[in-house]
Amino acid sequence: MTSYQPRKNDRFAFGLWTIMNTGRDPFGEPTRGSMGGLEVITELGKRNVYAYEMHWEDIIPDAASAVERDRIVKEAQKRMADSEIVCGSSGANTFTHPVFKDGALTSHDPKIRQMAVQRYLTAIDVGYELGCRLTNIWWGRDGAEVDAAKSPVEAIKRLREAFNYLQAYIDDNKYAGYRLSIEPKPNEPRGDTYLPAVGHAMALIATLNKPENCGLVPEVAHVRMAGLNAYHEIALALESNKLFGVHLNSQKPLRFDQDIRFGAEDLKESFFIVKLLEDHKWQGNRCFDAHAYRTADREEVWDFVTGCIRTYLILREKAEAFNRDAEIQGILQDLRKGCDTPLPVSAELRRANIDPAPLTARKYHHERLDQLVQELLLGVR
Amino acid sequence: MTSYQPRKNDRFAFGLWTIMNTGRDPFGEPTRGSMGGLEVITELGKRNVYAYEMHWEDIIPDAASAVERDRIVKEAQKRMADSEIVCGSSGANTFTHPVFKDGALTSHDPKIRQMAVQRYLTAIDVGYELGCRLTNIWWGRDGAEVDAAKSPVEAIKRLREAFNYLQAYIDDNKYAGYRLSIEPKPNEPRGDTYLPAVGHAMALIATLNKPENCGLVPEVAHVRMAGLNAYHEIALALESNKLFGVHLNSQKPLRFDQDIRFGAEDLKESFFIVKLLEDHKWQGNRCFDAHAYRTADREEVWDFVTGCIRTYLILREKAEAFNRDAEIQGILQDLRKGCDTPLPVSAELRRANIDPAPLTARKYHHERLDQLVQELLLGVR
Amino acid sequence: MTSYQPRKNDRFAFGLWTIMNTGRDPFGEPTRGSMGGLEVITELGKRNVYAYEMHWEDIIPDAASAVERDRIVKEAQKRMADSEIVCGSSGANTFTHPVFKDGALTSHDPKIRQMAVQRYLTAIDVGYELGCRLTNIWWGRDGAEVDAAKSPVEAIKRLREAFNYLQAYIDDNKYAGYRLSIEPKPNEPRGDTYLPAVGHAMALIATLNKPENCGLVPEVAHVRMAGLNAYHEIALALESNKLFGVHLNSQKPLRFDQDIRFGAEDLKESFFIVKLLEDHKWQGNRCFDAHAYRTADREEVWDFVTGCIRTYLILREKAEAFNRDAEIQGILQDLRKGCDTPLPVSAELRRANIDPAPLTARKYHHERLDQLVQELLLGVR
Amino acid sequence: MTSYQPRKNDRFAFGLWTIMNTGRDPFGEPTRGSMGGLEVITELGKRNVYAYEMHWEDIIPDAASAVERDRIVKEAQKRMADSEIVCGSSGANTFTHPVFKDGALTSHDPKIRQMAVQRYLTAIDVGYELGCRLTNIWWGRDGAEVDAAKSPVEAIKRLREAFNYLQAYIDDNKYAGYRLSIEPKPNEPRGDTYLPAVGHAMALIATLNKPENCGLVPEVAHVRMAGLNAYHEIALALESNKLFGVHLNSQKPLRFDQDIRFGAEDLKESFFIVKLLEDHKWQGNRCFDAHAYRTADREEVWDFVTGCIRTYLILREKAEAFNRDAEIQGILQDLRKGCDTPLPVSAELRRANIDPAPLTARKYHHERLDQLVQELLLGVR
Repeated sequence: MTSYQPRKNDRFAFGLWTIMNTGRDPFGEPTRGSMGGLEVITELGKRNVYAYEMHWEDIIPDAASAVERDRIVKEAQKRMADSEIVCGSSGANTFTHPVFKDGALTSHDPKIRQMAVQRYLTAIDVGYELGCRLTNIWWGRDGAEVDAAKSPVEAIKRLREAFNYLQAYIDDNKYAGYRLSIEPKPNEPRGDTYLPAVGHAMALIATLNKPENCGLVPEVAHVRMAGLNAYHEIALALESNKLFGVHLNSQKPLRFDQDIRFGAEDLKESFFIVKLLEDHKWQGNRCFDAHAYRTADREEVWDFVTGCIRTYLILREKAEAFNRDAEIQGILQDLRKGCDTPLPVSAELRRANIDPAPLTARKYHHERLDQLVQELLLGVR
Repeated sequence: MTSYQPRKNDRFAFGLWTIMNTGRDPFGEPTRGSMGGLEVITELGKRNVYAYEMHWEDIIPDAASAVERDRIVKEAQKRMADSEIVCGSSGANTFTHPVFKDGALTSHDPKIRQMAVQRYLTAIDVGYELGCRLTNIWWGRDGAEVDAAKSPVEAIKRLREAFNYLQAYIDDNKYAGYRLSIEPKPNEPRGDTYLPAVGHAMALIATLNKPENCGLVPEVAHVRMAGLNAYHEIALALESNKLFGVHLNSQKPLRFDQDIRFGAEDLKESFFIVKLLEDHKWQGNRCFDAHAYRTADREEVWDFVTGCIRTYLILREKAEAFNRDAEIQGILQDLRKGCDTPLPVSAELRRANIDPAPLTARKYHHERLDQLVQELLLGVR
Repeated sequence: MTSYQPRKNDRFAFGLWTIMNTGRDPFGEPTRGSMGGLEVITELGKRNVYAYEMHWEDIIPDAASAVERDRIVKEAQKRMADSEIVCGSSGANTFTHPVFKDGALTSHDPKIRQMAVQRYLTAIDVGYELGCRLTNIWWGRDGAEVDAAKSPVEAIKRLREAFNYLQAYIDDNKYAGYRLSIEPKPNEPRGDTYLPAVGHAMALIATLNKPENCGLVPEVAHVRMAGLNAYHEIALALESNKLFGVHLNSQKPLRFDQDIRFGAEDLKESFFIVKLLEDHKWQGNRCFDAHAYRTADREEVWDFVTGCIRTYLILREKAEAFNRDAEIQGILQDLRKGCDTPLPVSAELRRANIDPAPLTARKYHHERLDQLVQELLLGVR
Repeated sequence: MTSYQPRKNDRFAFGLWTIMNTGRDPFGEPTRGSMGGLEVITELGKRNVYAYEMHWEDIIPDAASAVERDRIVKEAQKRMADSEIVCGSSGANTFTHPVFKDGALTSHDPKIRQMAVQRYLTAIDVGYELGCRLTNIWWGRDGAEVDAAKSPVEAIKRLREAFNYLQAYIDDNKYAGYRLSIEPKPNEPRGDTYLPAVGHAMALIATLNKPENCGLVPEVAHVRMAGLNAYHEIALALESNKLFGVHLNSQKPLRFDQDIRFGAEDLKESFFIVKLLEDHKWQGNRCFDAHAYRTADREEVWDFVTGCIRTYLILREKAEAFNRDAEIQGILQDLRKGCDTPLPVSAELRRANIDPAPLTARKYHHERLDQLVQELLLGVR
C-alpha cells in the first residue's frame, strides 16, 4: 500500500488564502489566528507542495510603497527558492474593499473600474516577477441583485473591454507566455454573478481580441453551487485546450459557498475529475482552493492540507485501477465497439432505411458498470 | 386600459407540442384528449398567433411514406395560409423513441447517431418547405447518469460533428437563410445533460465550421432548473447576436421540469426578459413553450394560451412605463453619469493614485429603485 | 389610492439587527457605519413601527455588569415609551462568539451548553423586564458538516433538554404568559442545521414537557433556502396554533442566505402569506427580518424599511381585492361546492361503487384562476 | 473478503413497482418489457430478499371482482410461501388515475376523497390478509401549483381526517398490530406537495387520534430532492420511535425524481444511514425504492437489485470497521469526554461565571476525523 505522500512532481498547489483563512463567516468571528502569506509560502513548500496561487494582496499591503513592494517580492523569491515552491497564479482582490460593493470590472463608475483594472496590472507585474505566467480572475462582485440597476448586456461588454485591456498590457510589456484566466461562480456574494459557469466564460473568451491567450480555472464548488456536474464542466474546458488551471474542493450542491476539503462530499464526481486530468496527462497544477472547517485551529489547518492531497492520490491510484480492471474495460469495449464510424454522406443518409429494433435491443450494462465503479471506490475490488 | 389581445405583429408563437400535450406525467396517465398537430396550427392561427414551432413528428408519423409526408406538408401549408400563421422552427424528436435511451447525437452507436441526424435532415427539409428558416435542437437525452460509460470530452466532439454535418447539408442544398440553434437544458430526462446552459452552447458554437449560422433558443424554465438568472442568460445570447429564438415559460427553480404558463412563478424576472426583448427591438418570435396544468381539460388549454399572451402584453406595457418613469429614470441617470468614460492608457493607469473614499461613498439607491420596480409591477404607480 | 403609510395597529416589527447590519459579508468588509441598538429602537418607533425584536446582545454588551445592564434596560424602556414601540421578542446570540463554533445547545461540551443556556436565561429575564413575552430561538450553529463527529439522535435530545430547562425557568420565575419559539433554518452557517424546517421544529415541540408553550417563528428566506413553499410552511404552523411569530423577507431559492426586502423575489408567494395572515386575523407582529443591500449606506437603510412596509400594505390591499373579486370567488365557489361533506362510514364506503368518469371530467379552472391572481397582482384588474 | 450475498435475516426488501418499472419517463416511452407483480414476488423471494412492499394495484386489477381478488391473494400467498418472502407493506395507488389529478385525500370533491380512502381500505384489507402490518402512504398528488385554488390549512385538516378514519377502520376490524405510515416528498408530480419532509409528517402525526400508531417511511431520494440531509431526517424519525420503514435509494439533490440505485450518488450519507440503522439495531426492513436506469433491459434490472444489496452490505461492513477503528474511536472519546454532564440548576447557572477562553481553545479534530471516514470508505484503511 502506498503512503500517499506528495512529491513535487505531483504538482499540487494551494491558494495562499486557503491557509490564511481565519474561520470568519457571515454570522461569526474568526476562530483561529492569522498567518502571513509569506510564511504560508514557506510552509507549503516544505510540505512538498509544488506551487502556490495568490492574490498579490495576500503578501503585499494595499498601501505598500514601491520600495516596500520590491522588498516583499524579494523575500517571497527567497522563500520560494528555499522551500522549492513556485508561484502558479497571481490574481488581485477586487471583492473585499467596500469600494467594489457593486462590482469592479463592471461598475458603472469609470474610476472604480480603473481601480479594479489597476489591481490586475499589479497582479500581472508581481506575478511576472515571481515567475508565474498566469493571472486568474474571479470577479466576485460583478453581478446584481437589482436587475433594474445594471444591464447584463453592458456588463459583458465591460468584461470584454477589461480582458482586452489586460491582454494589451501583457503584450506591451512583452511578458512572454503570460496568460489570463477566468474562474466563474454563479452567485455569492452577489445574488447572480455575470457569466456564472464555465461555458459562459468560454463564450466571452471566444470574443476577445486574443482568445488563445485566455482560458479557464473551473472550481468544483462553484460548479456544484449551480447544481451542475463539475466533471463535465472541466471536460468542456479541457476539450478546447482552455483548462489553464483547476480549483479542487468540495461542497453540498445548491447552497452557500462551503469550500470544503477536496472529495469530502462527492467521491464519485471527484474520482472522475482526477481520472480526466490523469488520463489526459494534463500538465497544470492540481490546486486546492478550500479551507479548513471553522472548528479547526491553526494547527489543524494542516490536517486539511494533508486530507486534500491524500484524497487526490488515492483517487489517482483508483483511476489507474479503473484503467486496468478487466471487467470494467470489457464493458467499455463492448459499449464502444465501432463507435468512431463516421457518418455517411447526407445524400445517402437521407434515404437510408435504418431498423431501430436491433439498436433498441442493445445492452448498456450501466447498472453493472456503475456498481463496479462504486466497488472500486469502496476498495472491495 | 388596453385589452391585451394579441395581434399578428406582436409575433407570438407556440410549440405545437404545447397544445398537443395530454397531461401525462411520470406518475400519471393522460388527463385530456389528444389534438392533432395540423389542427393545432389552425387553432393557433385563428387566435392571432403569428407562428408555430414544431418537431416534424408533431404532424408527420414516423412511418409516413414520402407521398404521405408530401400530402401532410401540403395540408399544413393550406392551413397556414388559411389562418395566417407561419412556421417559426422545425425540429425533430430524438427523445421519445426507446432507441435514443442513451442519447442520440452522442450515442456510442454510429447507427443510432445516424438515426438522430437523419431525423434532423428531415426537419430541415420539411422546415424549408414550410417556409421556416430555423431548426432548433434540444438534445434531450444527450447526457449521462453513469459517467463511467461515456466521455464528456468525446460527447462535445460528437455534437460538433453533428452540427457541422447539418450545416453542410444546408449549404449543399442551398437552403438560403436556413439556420440552426441549440436549446440547452441542464437535466431531465438525463441526470446531467451535456452543455447544460446558454454559455456552454455558445462555447460549442464558437468552434463550429460556420459559427455565424448557429445560435441559441434559451428557455426560461430550463435556466431556472439550474437556478440561474434567465434574464442574464438571454442577454448573453443577445449581446453576441446569437438570440435566434426564445422559449418563454415559467417554473419554480431547481426541481423537475414544470413548464408552466409564462410569468406564473417569476414576475420580476419575466418583466426584465420582456423589457430586454422590447428595448433591443429584438425581431424574433415570442414563443411560448409550456403546457397547461394537468388539471386542465382540452378546453382550458386555451386559457393557458390566453394567459401566456396577456402576461407578455401586460409586462410589455410595464416596460414602456419603466422607460417613461421620471423617478426611475432619474436614478438610472444618476447611476450612469459618465459611465462610458474609457480607461486611460495602461502606462498612466499603472501609476494613477485613485482615492477610494469618494467612490466608496457613492449612493446606489438600489433599495428605492427595486421598490419602484416592484410598485410598477404591482400597478400602484 | 392609499398612501401605504404604516400605523401602529398594523403591527409591523423589525429585528434591531436588521437595521444595525453594516453590510459585512463573507468576502467583504462593512459598507456602512454602525448604529446602536438603543438608537434603532427610537428610530423604528418614530416611523410607526409597532414592535422590535432583539437579541439582548444587540443592546447590552456581553461583559456588562448587572448595574450596567439595568441602566441599559431602563434606557430602552424610556425610549420605548417615548417612541411608542414595544418589544416583541428577546433572543440571544449564540452564533457570533467562536466558543459556539461547533454549536451551542447541542455542543458535546457541557460548559459550552451551559454558556448557551445562560444566554437564553438572560434573554428571558431581559425580555420580561422589557415587557415582551417571547424568546425566539434560532440555533444558528447547531448542526454539522462532519456527521462522524456528532449524533443527530443525540442532538435532538439535547435540544429537547434545553427547551424543557428554559420552560422550567419561566415557570420557576412565574413569568406569566412568557413563551418560547423556534426559528428553523436548513443550513448556513452550518452545512446542515438540525431540524431544518417548520415541520421538524413542530415535531420536537410535540415532545416537550409543555408543548403548548412553545411555537414557531417561520422565516420566509429560510424556507426558500430549502426550496420549500413558505406559504405552506406558515400555514402548517398556523393550523396548529403554533404561529407565535413570523419573519418576513425574501430570497432566491436554494442559495446563500440573502435576507432581502420582503416581496423582492417572490411576489405571488408573498401575497399568499399576507393573505393567510389577514384572512385568519392572525394577531401577531408582522416582523421583517432582512437587511438592506450591501450597496446601501446608513441613510438608504430606511428605504429598505419603507419598502418592506409598503409591499406588505399593497399586498394586504390586494388580498382584500381577491376576497371581493366576483370572478375569482365564483371559481372558488364552484371548486368548493359540497367540499365539506363528511366521509360515509367505512362499512358503507368499503362497498361503495363510485364512478370515476364524472369526477375525472370535473373542471378545475386553474389556468384561469392563477391568471386572475397574476393580473390582480399586476394591478390590471 | 466476504461475498456480499444477501441472507433472509438481512431483511432486505423491494417495492414490487421497482422491478415492474418499464423505463417510461416524461419524455420517452417504455424501454423494457413489463413483468407481473406476482412474478416479481417469486423472483425477489428466490434471490433471498426478505420482504416486498406493494400497492395492491401492483397485483390486483382496479376492476377485479371480489372473487378475482381472492384468487390473486391466494396465489400471492402461495408464491410467498414457495419463495420464502413476506409482505412488508401494502399501500394504494392514488396518483396514476386521472381522477386524482388535483389530489386524492385533499381533493375538494368529497367523492374523490372517498375513492382515495376506499383504495386505502382495500390496501389494509389485502395487506392484513397477506400478513403485513403496515399501510404506507405516499400522497403523491396532494399538493398544488395554483395556491389560489386550495387552502394549505384545510389540506392538513383533510389529511388528519383521513388518517383518523383509516385508524378507526383498523380498530373496528380488530386488525391487531396493523399500523399506518407516511412517506413524505417535497414535489413532483405536484409543484409543492403538502407536508414535504419528515418533520412535517411527524407534526401531523402528533395531532392524530392515535399518534402511537402512525409513523414514517422516509425515502432518501425524497429528502435529497429538498436538499436536506437524509441521515438527519431518518435519525429524527428514529429518535421518536417513528421509523416504521425506510426507502433506500439515491439521487442528485434538487432535481427531478431520479430514484437510482442505493449509494450511487451519496456514498458518505448512505454510509451514515446504514450505520444509524445498524448501530441502533433497528428492526425494520431495509427496503429499496428505486428503479434501474432507463437503459437497462429486463435482465439488467437484476443487476440493479444486486447493486443495491451489495452496497448496503459493503457499507454495513464499513460501519463495523468504523466502530472498531482505534483512531476514529479515540477522537470520538476525546470529543465526548464528559458530554453527558447535566445542566446545573438555573438559579446557579444564571450567576455562573464561565470563562470562554479554554472552551474556545478546544480541539475538534474534524478535518482528521472526516478524512479517516473518507479513507475507510475508500478502503485504504
